[in-house]
Amino acid sequence: MVGPANPPVDRRLEGDLPVTSAERAAAGLDGSATLLVSGFGSVGYPKAVPLALADADRDLSLTVVSGGTVGDEIDTDLLESGAIERRYPYQGTEAARDAVNSGAVAYQDRHVGGLADEVAFDLIAEGDVAVVEAVAVGEDWLVPSTSVGQTPAFVESASELIVEVNRAQPLGLGRLHDIYRPSDPPAREPLPLTEPDDRVGDPFVTFDPEKLTAVVETDRRDSPYEFRDPTAEDWAIARHLGDFLTDEMERNRVLSERITLQFGVGNLGNALMSELSGIDIGDRTLGYFGEVIQDGLLDLIEEGRLACASATSLALSADGQERLFENLDRYASDVVLRPTDVSNSPALIDRFGVVGVNSALEVDVYGHANSTHINGSNVINGVGGSGDFNRNALVSVTALRSTARDGSVSRVVPMVSHVDHTEHEIDVIVTEHGVADLRGLSPRERADAIVERCADPSVRPTLRDYLKRAGDAGGHMPHDLDTVFDWR
Amino acid sequence: MVGPANPPVDRRLEGDLPVTSAERAAAGLDGSATLLVSGFGSVGYPKAVPLALADADRDLSLTVVSGGTVGDEIDTDLLESGAIERRYPYQGTEAARDAVNSGAVAYQDRHVGGLADEVAFDLIAEGDVAVVEAVAVGEDWLVPSTSVGQTPAFVESASELIVEVNRAQPLGLGRLHDIYRPSDPPAREPLPLTEPDDRVGDPFVTFDPEKLTAVVETDRRDSPYEFRDPTAEDWAIARHLGDFLTDEMERNRVLSERITLQFGVGNLGNALMSELSGIDIGDRTLGYFGEVIQDGLLDLIEEGRLACASATSLALSADGQERLFENLDRYASDVVLRPTDVSNSPALIDRFGVVGVNSALEVDVYGHANSTHINGSNVINGVGGSGDFNRNALVSVTALRSTARDGSVSRVVPMVSHVDHTEHEIDVIVTEHGVADLRGLSPRERADAIVERCADPSVRPTLRDYLKRAGDAGGHMPHDLDTVFDWR
Repeated sequence: MVGPANPPVDRRLEGDLPVTSAERAAAGLDGSATLLVSGFGSVGYPKAVPLALADADRDLSLTVVSGGTVGDEIDTDLLESGAIERRYPYQGTEAARDAVNSGAVAYQDRHVGGLADEVAFDLIAEGDVAVVEAVAVGEDWLVPSTSVGQTPAFVESASELIVEVNRAQPLGLGRLHDIYRPSDPPAREPLPLTEPDDRVGDPFVTFDPEKLTAVVETDRRDSPYEFRDPTAEDWAIARHLGDFLTDEMERNRVLSERITLQFGVGNLGNALMSELSGIDIGDRTLGYFGEVIQDGLLDLIEEGRLACASATSLALSADGQERLFENLDRYASDVVLRPTDVSNSPALIDRFGVVGVNSALEVDVYGHANSTHINGSNVINGVGGSGDFNRNALVSVTALRSTARDGSVSRVVPMVSHVDHTEHEIDVIVTEHGVADLRGLSPRERADAIVERCADPSVRPTLRDYLKRAGDAGGHMPHDLDTVFDWR
Repeated sequence: MVGPANPPVDRRLEGDLPVTSAERAAAGLDGSATLLVSGFGSVGYPKAVPLALADADRDLSLTVVSGGTVGDEIDTDLLESGAIERRYPYQGTEAARDAVNSGAVAYQDRHVGGLADEVAFDLIAEGDVAVVEAVAVGEDWLVPSTSVGQTPAFVESASELIVEVNRAQPLGLGRLHDIYRPSDPPAREPLPLTEPDDRVGDPFVTFDPEKLTAVVETDRRDSPYEFRDPTAEDWAIARHLGDFLTDEMERNRVLSERITLQFGVGNLGNALMSELSGIDIGDRTLGYFGEVIQDGLLDLIEEGRLACASATSLALSADGQERLFENLDRYASDVVLRPTDVSNSPALIDRFGVVGVNSALEVDVYGHANSTHINGSNVINGVGGSGDFNRNALVSVTALRSTARDGSVSRVVPMVSHVDHTEHEIDVIVTEHGVADLRGLSPRERADAIVERCADPSVRPTLRDYLKRAGDAGGHMPHDLDTVFDWR
């Protein structure tokens, strides 16, 4: 591995910059602009300009495209001011969810790995103004803060750029970044990484200096995730996953020397990572090539278990952020933050033989997964990067609790009411009850494995009845469409 | 482009080979073997050994893994003899469909682009014996015939190899082949192609000579597809697609110099390709990077419209085969046949900015597509490569007739009964009535576009009623699960 290059400066602002207030920067924006905002995993998003827009007494109809999840300044304050008309590709607040589900905000949920191209090629919206958070800025460069996300593509695509320099984010964050912009099709070069922690770019994003219309200073902290403590079910899922990984290392020759994991599992993540610190991996190198870095990964790095962690965002708790900020020297050699079109690249996920572990709201007996919609209608967040990993991983695992709402609702159902990941992609399902390895199984065999090993025992008789009734009528994947949703 | 290398020989058999009869080769097989058979697009599959197995008076329980579609010798004769217990990853005969839907044969339908890895790494089944058709064979090499399919991976993975040398297939077919085996993760090298028609491998497959247990000679022809003539609806779809492509060339900067298309559309294909010969592409280069080469592509090559065609199979009609066989010199400079993990590589589909056009059985008002299952239960063929292209294409188009069964069944429905391609992947839907460009639209907007532009006018009132009723209850993607399948 090449060591991290130094960020270009040791000061926050360098050169002749259009420094102004958030209010003045906001006032200069067209009321129906498309804003391309930094941020992923609830960190590294602009805060001051969105708040100034929310407070402005103007009639706004903005399109807001973010990297991934952003905080309340955008998806609560700005959104509740009525300023947002359209929103891509992911949202993660209660206010945004309500607005999207009521139809007040038009939302399209996209695979985040492909979003940079969709923006760069004007395929979903034409980007006008990039508004990005940085730890430092010069006349033609900026250093992103706690997430890289889609910032490089956004900055390149926008005709105008507003930078928020956030003094609450350590300047040293630039030491984590590896900014590489893929070239365009039809002569796109292969991404040049040969290892998950290769550095192939710069610690900063460059731009045409003519674009830079405003630099705003702020010291407002991210509003990062609040993770709950793992439950007994989380620990049980983690143990089953640990057992599965132990077996898989033995039988899958791609894993004979190196295991590269990805986790997109929210609250479950820290239990999984704690479990990982206990399993025997022999002489193998353990790496992480994913989308977000959670607190548990820091533990694994500390313990010397994890050789490297590559992601697009530091989706840490407030404690985790603090810990990383205070030990940047320690982490800079093992942690790399990349643009989302590199962290979630189908080619790289395949190249490194990633074992992906992602969650879902529900799975069905034939192995389809719903990550996004309750009752087929109400979206929670979005598909995020789960599809990038489920589709391209060497082994894709869906890990979820078998029930929701204190056990009253089964997450294993006859047919999911919305499909984000198909039967062609999900290899393994893990719940607190066990592991269903679906590889090579016909749909009827999959149903048996999922019901008997993963469903809550209390609902197994009902699921068996459904399968019996549907199966009597025949079919490769027997369904009784007249009653398939009566279950609810 | 580097010109095609010559095949290694001008004779069918070279060296000291274990030539034997199909019957003796078949008799040497274990009754519960996993057979990895060549063939894709209904051509290039072994014929004599499967027929000998079908005729043998033995109790067989074989697992048969093919590249893609194979002919009746395997999926009718051998299957109806009761010899096949498991089948991957695609089937295309009435006999196989019936056996799979009755549960008599256990079938798992996979994305064909990922199958080579799944076999090589023993992820779905452990391959025992590769049975492949060739136009020529030596002690440690073979030249595939009318399809390359998964043959290189199958030959590498199997512990035993049986080669059928087919004298009915021209020896010159080797001039079309470019055989490249991707290296394994976690140190997988990027595929080295920079243009759709680059040649980066050999015209032959090499193998460990110890594996070769039998060489069988045959002169049995492929049983290729029978294409019907385009209907008025097919022509209307083709015209709408032509209009869409004309517009897209102007607005999508990736297409400013080169357009690379893929078609996975069966009977519709020849109408689309005929339409293509009429549209104005300016100075652009037109290329094809797909899975199968259909007759219409030969016309485009003849006309000088198409610079190159890359695929894994010559899925031609009998007439098309004849035409290609008689003009191999002409076509060898413009047609390349590759392994399926190269033809359908996510990285390459992305790298070349492919515009993919695939069909479906039905689509729903929110833009999900069902390519495989009738009423959610009965599989027709399989997902094939449609998912590889829909997911990774620059623009993914689903083209289908708005109705089935002489207009009595709408192919635009409230909710598809099986999802193979999600709302996150389908960019554009085209029927004989028009084009719905879904990019950037919220689900409610997508529903409006699909119903008003693509559904048959006779069913629009019913679909509007459904959307009104579901929409009144709210939701990002409003559904009324109590009545969503009443439509049928």
